[in-house]
Order: sequence, then structure tokens, then C-alpha cells
Amino acid sequence: MIILGIDPGLATLGYGVIEVNNDKRRLIQFGTLTTPAGQPMPQRLRAIFQGMNQLMDIYQPDDVAFEELFFSKNITTGMAVSAARGVALVAVVQRTDNLYEYTPMQIKQAVTGYGGADKHQVQMMVKMLLNMKDIARPDDAADALAVALTHANSMNMKKMFKIK
Amino acid sequence: MIILGIDPGLATLGYGVIEVNNDKRRLIQFGTLTTPAGQPMPQRLRAIFQGMNQLMDIYQPDDVAFEELFFSKNITTGMAVSAARGVALVAVVQRTDNLYEYTPMQIKQAVTGYGGADKHQVQMMVKMLLNMKDIARPDDAADALAVALTHANSMNMKKMFKIK
Repeated sequence: MIILGIDPGLATLGYGVIEVNNDKRRLIQFGTLTTPAGQPMPQRLRAIFQGMNQLMDIYQPDDVAFEELFFSKNITTGMAVSAARGVALVAVVQRTDNLYEYTPMQIKQAVTGYGGADKHQVQMMVKMLLNMKDIARPDDAADALAVALTHANSMNMKKMFKIK
Repeated sequence: MIILGIDPGLATLGYGVIEVNNDKRRLIQFGTLTTPAGQPMPQRLRAIFQGMNQLMDIYQPDDVAFEELFFSKNITTGMAVSAARGVALVAVVQRTDNLYEYTPMQIKQAVTGYGGADKHQVQMMVKMLLNMKDIARPDDAADALAVALTHANSMNMKKMFKIK
């Protein structure tokens, strides 16, 4: 099964695509959608929407996992990210209802086994788990891979619970 | 020319459609798109997106005017409205770049001639300007008509300046 992980943002939206077969995880692709700060908001949001539609077309993910927004101290940034996330959610939900969301703490816990892990530790674990030569860059793409891995691990847990 | 006015919201998005010919304004339609609070966010945003697409299909507006978000004291509400507004903007910008935005004060000023007017005064003026029997209900729809009228008036002002 294909999982698309999304770290939502307006200036930079990170994405990561992995394939999961039982306990195997394989990296397919990662990257970012970026929009220039100078552009008007509607055009930036349209670019996010079109980019997300392309990701859905290309990778046909079975499940899509979002990193949950945590409320920014900067309310203007928070509003912008929230708009971008809304647009990304619509692009996904027009194709599939298999949408999941994980908090930063759940992601750290799932990927490193420790909810208080720092960014670098998470990135190192993503690299190891996906047999990558280097840490994924930029951070947004690494975060997106981490949320995809988190979803893969959560599915395993659900399976274990089901077997019980 | 047809103007679509939008008062963005997640639970209730108000819309108002007017026709403008020189200094004449004619009411075409007003109403709301509503989404139930119990529904998951992606489904609610999809409903807003689909509803906005229908409005664009039905009324084929030349210009679309949004009431500007003012930052809610309640950050959770602000995030939800911001997401809904983002989705509505994308539905519009896929068809036209003729997108405008007005602050609540600009709207009060344009419709009543007084930036400190209260909600009821604005609604009464909307009713008068559009020869309506009653005040538009709910408030979100009345607000959407007010922003459409604001845009109609701003266009006249621009014309006047051009003649100079």
C-alpha cells in the first residue's frame, strides 16, 4: 500500500511517499510544493491545490497522513498555514476518505520511540527506516516522511490489536 | 456585470449575488452554504468547495468580493474560518482572477457612508439599495450582499477617478 505523508504549509508544503508491505517500508519519493511570498494568496492557494492534485494523480496513495497543525504563536502565519492545509485536505478528500492526522508528539513517539525526541533524531530515524543515504532535505520533506512512517506504524499496531 | 459577494465561514458561508448596470443594482440571489459541526473537517471543506463551484457555475460572476477575515479572538474558530476561506478562494481563482477583498470598515463606509455603522444599519441600507421587502437573513447572507454592494460602489469610484 502507498502512503502519502503531508507536512502542510503555505510557503513550503512537504510531502513524502512510501510503500508499505507488511513490516517493510520503501521510500518512493519526497519533496516540497513551494509558493513565493510575493504572490497573492489566492494564486498561492491555487498552486498548492494543483500541486496536491498532481501528487494524488502520480502516486495514487491508498492512505494520506497529515501532520496536525499546532497553533502558531504568530497568528498571521497560523491563518496562512490553516488555509493551505484546508486546500490540501480538499484535494485529498475529493479522491479518498482515507485521511489521517498525527500530532508532532505521536510522530516522534512512532518514529523514534520517544515523544520528546528532537528534530535531528527524528530525521536520523527516517533515514535509517527508509535506507536513505542522507537525511531528507528540506525539513518539511523529512517531516512528511516521518508522518507517513507514523501512519505505517499505527496500522501495524491496529493489526496487532485486531489479532488479539 | 454580475458580482458575487462572500462572507467566508466554515459553519456558515454567506453569499450574495447582484447585477450592476452603471448606477443600477439589482438583487439576483442570496443565501448560505452550511456545514454541520459534527462532520470531519475534510468533508466540511469539500462541501464548501463544491458549493462554491456550484455558485460559480450558476451565476458566472464577473467579479467576486470577499469580506476580509478579521482575526478572531478564538484561535480555533479563526483557523477553521481561514481554512474555509482558503478553499473558497481556490474555487474562485480556478475560474477568474477578478477577486477583491474589503475590510468590515470599508464595507460599512461604502454601504452606509459611515465606517462606524452598526450591523442593523448596514442591513437596512442593503435592503434599501436592493429594493428588498425585508432584511436579508441570516446575517451572513446580508453581509455577503453588503460586500457585493461595496465592490459595486468601489468600481464607480474608480471610474470617477479615471474620468478625471
